[in-house]
Amino acid sequence: MFYHDRELQYKVRVDKPNPVFARMLQQAIGGIEGEIRVCLQYLFQAWGSRGPVKYRDMLLETGTEEIAHIEMLATAVALNLEGAPMSMQDEFAKDKVVGAIMGGMDPRHILSAGMSALATDANGVPFNGSWVVGSGNIVADMYTNVAAESTGRTLATRLWEMTDDPGMKDMLAFLIARDTMHQNQWMAVIEENGGLNAMPIPNSFPQSEEVQGFNYAFVSTYVGNEPTPAGRWVSGPSIDGKGEFHLEKAAPLGGVPVLAPPDPRGHAQKEQMTTTDSAMGTISDKVRGTLSGSGSHNSDAV
Amino acid sequence: MFYHDRELQYKVRVDKPNPVFARMLQQAIGGIEGEIRVCLQYLFQAWGSRGPVKYRDMLLETGTEEIAHIEMLATAVALNLEGAPMSMQDEFAKDKVVGAIMGGMDPRHILSAGMSALATDANGVPFNGSWVVGSGNIVADMYTNVAAESTGRTLATRLWEMTDDPGMKDMLAFLIARDTMHQNQWMAVIEENGGLNAMPIPNSFPQSEEVQGFNYAFVSTYVGNEPTPAGRWVSGPSIDGKGEFHLEKAAPLGGVPVLAPPDPRGHAQKEQMTTTDSAMGTISDKVRGTLSGSGSHNSDAV
Amino acid sequence: MFYHDRELQYKVRVDKPNPVFARMLQQAIGGIEGEIRVCLQYLFQAWGSRGPVKYRDMLLETGTEEIAHIEMLATAVALNLEGAPMSMQDEFAKDKVVGAIMGGMDPRHILSAGMSALATDANGVPFNGSWVVGSGNIVADMYTNVAAESTGRTLATRLWEMTDDPGMKDMLAFLIARDTMHQNQWMAVIEENGGLNAMPIPNSFPQSEEVQGFNYAFVSTYVGNEPTPAGRWVSGPSIDGKGEFHLEKAAPLGGVPVLAPPDPRGHAQKEQMTTTDSAMGTISDKVRGTLSGSGSHNSDAV
Amino acid sequence: MFYHDRELQYKVRVDKPNPVFARMLQQAIGGIEGEIRVCLQYLFQAWGSRGPVKYRDMLLETGTEEIAHIEMLATAVALNLEGAPMSMQDEFAKDKVVGAIMGGMDPRHILSAGMSALATDANGVPFNGSWVVGSGNIVADMYTNVAAESTGRTLATRLWEMTDDPGMKDMLAFLIARDTMHQNQWMAVIEENGGLNAMPIPNSFPQSEEVQGFNYAFVSTYVGNEPTPAGRWVSGPSIDGKGEFHLEKAAPLGGVPVLAPPDPRGHAQKEQMTTTDSAMGTISDKVRGTLSGSGSHNSDAV
Amino acid sequence: MFYHDRELQYKVRVDKPNPVFARMLQQAIGGIEGEIRVCLQYLFQAWGSRGPVKYRDMLLETGTEEIAHIEMLATAVALNLEGAPMSMQDEFAKDKVVGAIMGGMDPRHILSAGMSALATDANGVPFNGSWVVGSGNIVADMYTNVAAESTGRTLATRLWEMTDDPGMKDMLAFLIARDTMHQNQWMAVIEENGGLNAMPIPNSFPQSEEVQGFNYAFVSTYVGNEPTPAGRWVSGPSIDGKGEFHLEKAAPLGGVPVLAPPDPRGHAQKEQMTTTDSAMGTISDKVRGTLSGSGSHNSDAV
Amino acid sequence: MFYHDRELQYKVRVDKPNPVFARMLQQAIGGIEGEIRVCLQYLFQAWGSRGPVKYRDMLLETGTEEIAHIEMLATAVALNLEGAPMSMQDEFAKDKVVGAIMGGMDPRHILSAGMSALATDANGVPFNGSWVVGSGNIVADMYTNVAAESTGRTLATRLWEMTDDPGMKDMLAFLIARDTMHQNQWMAVIEENGGLNAMPIPNSFPQSEEVQGFNYAFVSTYVGNEPTPAGRWVSGPSIDGKGEFHLEKAAPLGGVPVLAPPDPRGHAQKEQMTTTDSAMGTISDKVRGTLSGSGSHNSDAV
Repeated sequence: MFYHDRELQYKVRVDKPNPVFARMLQQAIGGIEGEIRVCLQYLFQAWGSRGPVKYRDMLLETGTEEIAHIEMLATAVALNLEGAPMSMQDEFAKDKVVGAIMGGMDPRHILSAGMSALATDANGVPFNGSWVVGSGNIVADMYTNVAAESTGRTLATRLWEMTDDPGMKDMLAFLIARDTMHQNQWMAVIEENGGLNAMPIPNSFPQSEEVQGFNYAFVSTYVGNEPTPAGRWVSGPSIDGKGEFHLEKAAPLGGVPVLAPPDPRGHAQKEQMTTTDSAMGTISDKVRGTLSGSGSHNSDAV
Repeated sequence: MFYHDRELQYKVRVDKPNPVFARMLQQAIGGIEGEIRVCLQYLFQAWGSRGPVKYRDMLLETGTEEIAHIEMLATAVALNLEGAPMSMQDEFAKDKVVGAIMGGMDPRHILSAGMSALATDANGVPFNGSWVVGSGNIVADMYTNVAAESTGRTLATRLWEMTDDPGMKDMLAFLIARDTMHQNQWMAVIEENGGLNAMPIPNSFPQSEEVQGFNYAFVSTYVGNEPTPAGRWVSGPSIDGKGEFHLEKAAPLGGVPVLAPPDPRGHAQKEQMTTTDSAMGTISDKVRGTLSGSGSHNSDAV
Repeated sequence: MFYHDRELQYKVRVDKPNPVFARMLQQAIGGIEGEIRVCLQYLFQAWGSRGPVKYRDMLLETGTEEIAHIEMLATAVALNLEGAPMSMQDEFAKDKVVGAIMGGMDPRHILSAGMSALATDANGVPFNGSWVVGSGNIVADMYTNVAAESTGRTLATRLWEMTDDPGMKDMLAFLIARDTMHQNQWMAVIEENGGLNAMPIPNSFPQSEEVQGFNYAFVSTYVGNEPTPAGRWVSGPSIDGKGEFHLEKAAPLGGVPVLAPPDPRGHAQKEQMTTTDSAMGTISDKVRGTLSGSGSHNSDAV
Repeated sequence: MFYHDRELQYKVRVDKPNPVFARMLQQAIGGIEGEIRVCLQYLFQAWGSRGPVKYRDMLLETGTEEIAHIEMLATAVALNLEGAPMSMQDEFAKDKVVGAIMGGMDPRHILSAGMSALATDANGVPFNGSWVVGSGNIVADMYTNVAAESTGRTLATRLWEMTDDPGMKDMLAFLIARDTMHQNQWMAVIEENGGLNAMPIPNSFPQSEEVQGFNYAFVSTYVGNEPTPAGRWVSGPSIDGKGEFHLEKAAPLGGVPVLAPPDPRGHAQKEQMTTTDSAMGTISDKVRGTLSGSGSHNSDAV
Repeated sequence: MFYHDRELQYKVRVDKPNPVFARMLQQAIGGIEGEIRVCLQYLFQAWGSRGPVKYRDMLLETGTEEIAHIEMLATAVALNLEGAPMSMQDEFAKDKVVGAIMGGMDPRHILSAGMSALATDANGVPFNGSWVVGSGNIVADMYTNVAAESTGRTLATRLWEMTDDPGMKDMLAFLIARDTMHQNQWMAVIEENGGLNAMPIPNSFPQSEEVQGFNYAFVSTYVGNEPTPAGRWVSGPSIDGKGEFHLEKAAPLGGVPVLAPPDPRGHAQKEQMTTTDSAMGTISDKVRGTLSGSGSHNSDAV
Repeated sequence: MFYHDRELQYKVRVDKPNPVFARMLQQAIGGIEGEIRVCLQYLFQAWGSRGPVKYRDMLLETGTEEIAHIEMLATAVALNLEGAPMSMQDEFAKDKVVGAIMGGMDPRHILSAGMSALATDANGVPFNGSWVVGSGNIVADMYTNVAAESTGRTLATRLWEMTDDPGMKDMLAFLIARDTMHQNQWMAVIEENGGLNAMPIPNSFPQSEEVQGFNYAFVSTYVGNEPTPAGRWVSGPSIDGKGEFHLEKAAPLGGVPVLAPPDPRGHAQKEQMTTTDSAMGTISDKVRGTLSGSGSHNSDAV
């Protein structure tokens, strides 16, 4: 269960409110790289954690910290909105900057939220629960968390570049620091679980069941004549140490798929069901024989 | 630009069609761990690639391969739907299995798609373009790709466990093998870009600008008396080799946030604007002084 | 900022795991009447609170409590999923109940979440941030909260009816009790802000600016001959005490709207721009005169 | 069933078209506080109405009126778009106001809709059917309706403040008046159903089944030393008259949840299934005994 | 503006309620082929109609009729839900049919809607306003309407096949008849606007501005050796009578795209910005010269 | 399966980068009229194609071509973003154009994508898989494709009008030409399948099962006194040649719907279940008799 303090985890100060920057900050609240996502992601991973309980405990810690980050950013949005233009009346005509600001800010900050933050991204697109990934495989989840913190820290550095408000730069510098830690933290779990040896994920599936010959092949779909650029992934031992990279030119192994004709109750057009119609064309007798034949369902017409 | 073959990359055979399994396969098509997502993700990363062109080329290769995987899965869905019940009439009463199948399958496979695949997940939730992540930071993107392939391979192994249809198991064993390669492939790019030294991501942001003291601290929000479990993330050198892990008990540094009173044009209730009303309560004069005071906007009321 | 305990707010016990009930419980987690919604709603209202700070404090309290409710429900989902069928192989044919269960459970509980909860509703539709309402008007927000707790408590009582698992009934009986309190709590804020006198919301807009004659009129759009049923809203003093209910038969006051012809750069069909074409028909000269006329933009052609 | 007139319910006049205001008006059409939502909400409540038919009749009346409000707003959007800039060519460089307008308007008003309204909110986010709430409990539904009309009227007053176009102000003043009525109307239904005595909602669930002691307790999750502000919800009789408010400090009653280890077919990492691995750590034998023990599923490890 | 009757447009009778069929009917209410979509689509097209007013009038007629169709279907859902199982208690174990029904029905029909219809599709996915298309080009809109009525009528015939309830079959037979009319009706508008001569849509764009040689070419991306099947689209006069169909093998005309290196403030990895790093590779000096060169931005590196 | 070239299908050149135009181009990538939609739509139709295989082959061709169009547009977005403002620091104050640009561009182009394209529309709303329509009825699908290409070509012409960048105009002129072909191509399939005789769609449903008298009736819901405008749809032979258009004034045939009282386990309010309460009202004994009577479920109370 959870408790709160009335104070913030770190200081949020806005020296010069900027409603356009308030909109930008929304990406860090309700965007796919944002704090609501990591907060719920770590908490749901904790609540569904099976296996060593230390990971449940640790995920709870950081999931709880992230609530405080949403709080900081929501506060920053509210402070940046203070004094924002609320009318297009005279100002809009007189002052082009007001027009630009009103055009560049999120109108729902005025209309829906009364000058406070929304659970949306910088374009007003609502937070989406599909982003909360918890697969039950701890290494898959940790890479998902690293990915979230990597795009999240990249976002925070871009916000830092975008503003010259000292208070905002300071708050973002704190969040950037925390993202540094969280990237390291999730990697530390991967290290405890074998590091690169944890791959391929999940490591509990027997690789002998994979279709052999394709699990370490770089498949090239390129039709031109230029050589494939030399890359770490084309030759040499695989990263997981369990195979050897090699290059394969893409080629079809699966034949042409053949689907049965439509079931009459599905009400396709009549012409789809009467393929002997010469206007319809080119289906050879051989293929049609297959279609009406043994009832096999496969992608290989031969 | 792109070309196609009429044949599939790998054989898709369904020995015993199962419309409930058709629904399950949808997760691998239109789910967040599915093939539409990785296909578009790798292609968009290629199309926006800035920096060494070898990465653009490589992303194009694998993005193009993924289209073939959507095709295989869509074909598998169509084949699994052949012979599915299309009526609840007499069968439903007579045969409980038909009822269970119709309950367990995706009704839109009949109603909307005429027995073929949809661009949705296993619950009929449409594919969502927000899942297509391409941040412009190559290492952030590669970790995002590893995460997608890790949850994707986990999904494929679960589908493999769920069926005993030999054709479906074979197709999934192929896709599982490709996911093994793709996990390795994205890690190979990370290795080329410095491996763990690439962290913290983005590495182009000067760490001296981070708020010092917090970038390698595990913040514990736990209020109880049990000790923090020993973990790799609590002490020792950080994974990126640039700091030392340590433990910090969570404590507020940010003060109580104070927002200005509502702007009258935002039409809060009158009571929110007239805070001297004694029924409203407990705001001390000191705080109210701040509110109407200097126009500073910050989280620290003192 | 926020803290946590490793223990739950209230006991979560599942005597007989039921994966179909796990799916039902998702509605209380990620549905529009669910706990993620109220949790974020109260917290965002707190973080954007302008006016008396006691309301910010109180919203923080209950928003924080709701995190614990998500936790309880997520735990209940995970426990109900233990032992769920993970394969359609032999069991499906042999045992119709397994088929019904697999049909009735959320397949993503297996495929995506490894037997734990998702941030979705009972149909797998993701939580949506648009549901997080915080308007900045405290009474509007309180009615929104009462609405959320009313539909939420109704949902919980339906879940309570649906199960006979004593552990689940006990957990739901706790959540139902909390919803009773929360309904009362938000109404208490409304009472402090004037009760029914707080209406119409927002009360800071001068009613003299409303179009008079329509603010207490029940407009009847019914074309038939039956009498309008007697209801509290047809006559007598209005609930807010500021007007008198009366009945008005719907009648148009706005004239026929007239839009200008399409701008050529918008590339409507040519026929839309050349309205003199006799095939197009019946626009009278008078109306067309208006269209090409003074540039007035209104809904009244006369 | 339904009929229409070619005329509008109330006059829609735009004296000075403003495409940025057209975007703002979209919030009142397709936003969560908008008219499509209330229109469908009242109609769906009518169509699903069980109990006294007078409520079905009344909901049909107002649901039908709301269609006319969507129509008025859609007309207002179209009129505000007349003369909008459709090109960034020369004007954009020459005239900064044109740039600001094009930046501030919804580009889809040009690109997708040919200068007419969309079924979206002010940020172009589509109307979402999840907002249409009809729970089958009439008082829950009425509070939901009051909430919708309260945020809706607040929105309309903000739009009224934002414009100085006399035609638009007049149209909004009409809609504001209607929202006044609709707030009163839904409250009138609540009065008919017992007013505050209708609580807790649903009133058909026996309160004796609630976990006693928690249904009128204000639970405080605050960890600090400041006193809890005095509020109506902390002491005294509850609003529904059925209990006595009191204060409870949050404390865990639920123990630490314990989930079973992962099912092998769910393909967690091997390390999650072999918890004796010393690197994994701190799970005591006692807890692990419980995990592999009796098969009980609960949140309390003792 | 709009009016209503208390009676339905056509009789809705359910002889044997079936909650699984209730779920199926939801596709016709809130699905992309459903009635909410066409209702709003025709009304929004009417409200944004520019050009001959007869089309506005006609769209209003049919948009208004569609509200009555939503009403009929919502009523059918409510009637099909009467007597549905509301508990998994004893029945679920005893009676497998109850389990199958509860698995196959929409749980939100019980949990959220109290046995009435929702504004969602057959999978519980909410209606989405993005489906409401009104482009401002009347022929584009009419084809969109034909498409909606074609998939809508196909859906209705599938529902008709799925049930043997005489009442439901009768209601669907009415809706199928109306879809026949509506398909014809929209085609009649196309005929009035030139029929096939209305193409290409929009016909107000001068075809001389198109890149010549590609507007009537069937581009084949096929890499294999089989001949292209003879089809109406490969040779002969085009359908619009303005060109001659011919076949073109796909070939790239656009060169390799070259993007500038990342802007440092976007915080890509350092390695992306320092392309001389030999590990990075294969960019020739010539290409890099271009990158840092003239500032031209194009897809052709030469 | 699929292959690629490193070169683009057609040249993409941006003479003067414009980040606001980059945002506009997103509509053609991830909007409902955009290229991701048609790409996936044609491919899914191919993969689910039942009936003559020539249509599968042809859909694969054009679906594959569309990937190249997404690529061209994504490249155009990236090129238009080069040199875009990444900071609101000094420039914003100094230069109003910079403010207008930053307000008018998509902030996620900077924040989330590092100056490249997103899988979203011009408002940042993500691509939605629900738009991918493949009904299994080939003529329904072809009309859906014509509709997509008609709104798509209209969009492209509007983008063409909006820019004066010669490179962008050239690229759009190519895409407009391709849309011309694709409109013709889908119409050619309809011609092969009977042209107007293919209607009503699906043509495999026996029209004798339709409710007679309504399938060629224009139903007028208009309550006023003006005459119905003469249109092709009011009289004369129907477009499909199978009926005669005629006019019907809307009139209810379905009676008043009567739903059973709420099931107690659904927890409506008590007042909804005790309809004898005189305050509740107007339900006559006759109707209530019907409710509790024979168990018939219908819309006609008599």
